[in-house]
Amino acid sequence: MKKDQFCLPDGVIYLDGNSLGPMPKTVSNRVQKTLTDEWGQLLISAWNKAGWFHQPERLGDRLAPVIGAPRGTVVLGDTLSIKVYQALAASLAMRPERSVILSDSGNFPTDLYMAEGLIKTIDRQLQLKVVSPEQVADHLDDTVAVMMLTQVDYRTGRLHDMASLTEKAHRAGVVAMWDLAHSAGALPIDLEGCNAEFAVGCTYKYLNAGPGSPAFIYTRADLAIEAEPALSGWMGHAAPFAFDPAYSPALSIQRMRVGTPPVLQMAALDAALDVWDDVSIHDIRKKSIELCELFIAEVEKQCPQLKLISPRDSAKRGSHVSFAFEHGYAAIQALIADGVVGDFRAPDVMRFGFTPLYIDHNDVIAAVEILENIMTNELWNNDKFKHQAAVT
Amino acid sequence: MKKDQFCLPDGVIYLDGNSLGPMPKTVSNRVQKTLTDEWGQLLISAWNKAGWFHQPERLGDRLAPVIGAPRGTVVLGDTLSIKVYQALAASLAMRPERSVILSDSGNFPTDLYMAEGLIKTIDRQLQLKVVSPEQVADHLDDTVAVMMLTQVDYRTGRLHDMASLTEKAHRAGVVAMWDLAHSAGALPIDLEGCNAEFAVGCTYKYLNAGPGSPAFIYTRADLAIEAEPALSGWMGHAAPFAFDPAYSPALSIQRMRVGTPPVLQMAALDAALDVWDDVSIHDIRKKSIELCELFIAEVEKQCPQLKLISPRDSAKRGSHVSFAFEHGYAAIQALIADGVVGDFRAPDVMRFGFTPLYIDHNDVIAAVEILENIMTNELWNNDKFKHQAAVT
Repeated sequence: MKKDQFCLPDGVIYLDGNSLGPMPKTVSNRVQKTLTDEWGQLLISAWNKAGWFHQPERLGDRLAPVIGAPRGTVVLGDTLSIKVYQALAASLAMRPERSVILSDSGNFPTDLYMAEGLIKTIDRQLQLKVVSPEQVADHLDDTVAVMMLTQVDYRTGRLHDMASLTEKAHRAGVVAMWDLAHSAGALPIDLEGCNAEFAVGCTYKYLNAGPGSPAFIYTRADLAIEAEPALSGWMGHAAPFAFDPAYSPALSIQRMRVGTPPVLQMAALDAALDVWDDVSIHDIRKKSIELCELFIAEVEKQCPQLKLISPRDSAKRGSHVSFAFEHGYAAIQALIADGVVGDFRAPDVMRFGFTPLYIDHNDVIAAVEILENIMTNELWNNDKFKHQAAVT
Repeated sequence: MKKDQFCLPDGVIYLDGNSLGPMPKTVSNRVQKTLTDEWGQLLISAWNKAGWFHQPERLGDRLAPVIGAPRGTVVLGDTLSIKVYQALAASLAMRPERSVILSDSGNFPTDLYMAEGLIKTIDRQLQLKVVSPEQVADHLDDTVAVMMLTQVDYRTGRLHDMASLTEKAHRAGVVAMWDLAHSAGALPIDLEGCNAEFAVGCTYKYLNAGPGSPAFIYTRADLAIEAEPALSGWMGHAAPFAFDPAYSPALSIQRMRVGTPPVLQMAALDAALDVWDDVSIHDIRKKSIELCELFIAEVEKQCPQLKLISPRDSAKRGSHVSFAFEHGYAAIQALIADGVVGDFRAPDVMRFGFTPLYIDHNDVIAAVEILENIMTNELWNNDKFKHQAAVT
């Protein structure tokens, strides 16, 4: 759909945009302009003159329609881990009489780690309860303060039903907090409609904003002026430049800001969001499902050694597809050497992300042909693919 | 000393590097390379191949000598506010039986706000006690868990004696935590020698790493493997890519990492640190004192309306100089319009930073001449300088 707008090396079929999206071509000039014309020429005055100061909210409003959020409910900054901490702490503050953070084993580990750290820091009886994804609904009771889930499982692509689980949570008086890391830019999300209190996510996957790009946090409109900021930094203050010794949170989503925003990363994100000006997330989803279906069908036909571990029903799956294979690590290395970039997740998961922004039908067919060659010739048995360290 | 290595607009005398340092000329190419050759070409593999993953520790080791720290004790990431929170939480965890965070009214507000937020989040009796800078030593008793101070006062430039206060803190069993925002790159710091447990700081002031560049955190060598990480994100895990559901902190300074590092900002910082390869921080300090002394003498001679509020003794002053003046806000606007960039801090403080990296004797003389003209002609009474919003 937009392939010519991305930097993609010759000969590479990039099926790892679910980990780090490729660079939109406009990013380079945008960042250069921020460096040369803004920092270089305007110096300190760029905070006003180049609009750096309010970029976190402005980009929040740009991102909002992609995730089904109204204006004034999304702000960018920090990392996803930090945003998880903020949302969790604010959720706990809303239910001081409850003691359980409920999550599932499909959650990304850092979300669980941040919960662990928060619990250890807070000196009252709190518990992180981690159940299987299917059991979440059954554990929503009046001990649970907050349900913290990632919508799309980073390994299998299994998709939670946000609307239904949020409704069940609310019926039990539980605050709902969603991590949209593998959802934002991949599929339609109706944050406003589902009524969840908090959502967080990153922008370097399907939003293609680059390595270490800012995370986002959403609060339901009523909470943008009520949520308790545990990380109460000066950029979230009602009057940051009054230098008041006491903290007083902004009466807006700005209260979820903490420190000085990373201006270069914000510029890259701003350019990356241009892609969405004339793309419908519904079209993206429709075509992403077609690509995933085609990939599954072709792999199952040509590579029977691989076992699908993603849900077969596309309505229950995000935008990536995973197969289990005993020699998955080496097979992924062999694939990458042949120009097909997927990634590996322990213990045996081969993971492939599909986004129609820069992946098409021909790429899928070509990728499976290469995979089939690797499987037929058992190239994953080649020593050179076996002993490298993985950081993916 | 290095003026030709910085981007400085023609006709501008930049005395605001204490707020945002100017851009080193090498930054632009370095960031471009990260975009085009790394993200653009290596995609996800750049985390290993371009060394992105370990950049936070690698840059920590590059920065360490500038702040008097040994290797393996400094790591970059997040914002200064977040690093304050981490250091404070780790300090409190070391003194569970004590209840006071001691700080002073010269501290930067965000440090106090982060302490407030942490106290509100932790559900035990804790208190933030803020005394005057002169009274800190007298309040170091066995109720105090941690002494949190900024070495150089952001308004007056007043310099705390780190070695002496740290020693007094330790004598009372108090953990010492220093904010070096206005010190790092401005004056010699002997972190290792003073034996403080924690230090934090930013890199966009005297280290010239750009708007929103990563902050740093230092832990004393023994604490790099012992400090309790409240913000326990996956990048601080002993094995981030094992995706273990339980958090287990790295046995190194890496435990103070949280989420995915901002790679573009790290690249800018890397380039900015090149400046320090052949500059001695002791020479910087010596020349910075000369510039400050000259500025004070000239201003007092030519602009008697301005009242020095910085310590007159250079040994008790950082690298900026502040004057109080009733019409300070408008006078700073008039100065900026005439090419001399200082800044204003409420209620009446005119603040000027001096760094010999790109400011010399002639700049100081020229700046005071322009200031004198503004004062003589009462240009600060000009309406156009009065009603602008300040974000500086």
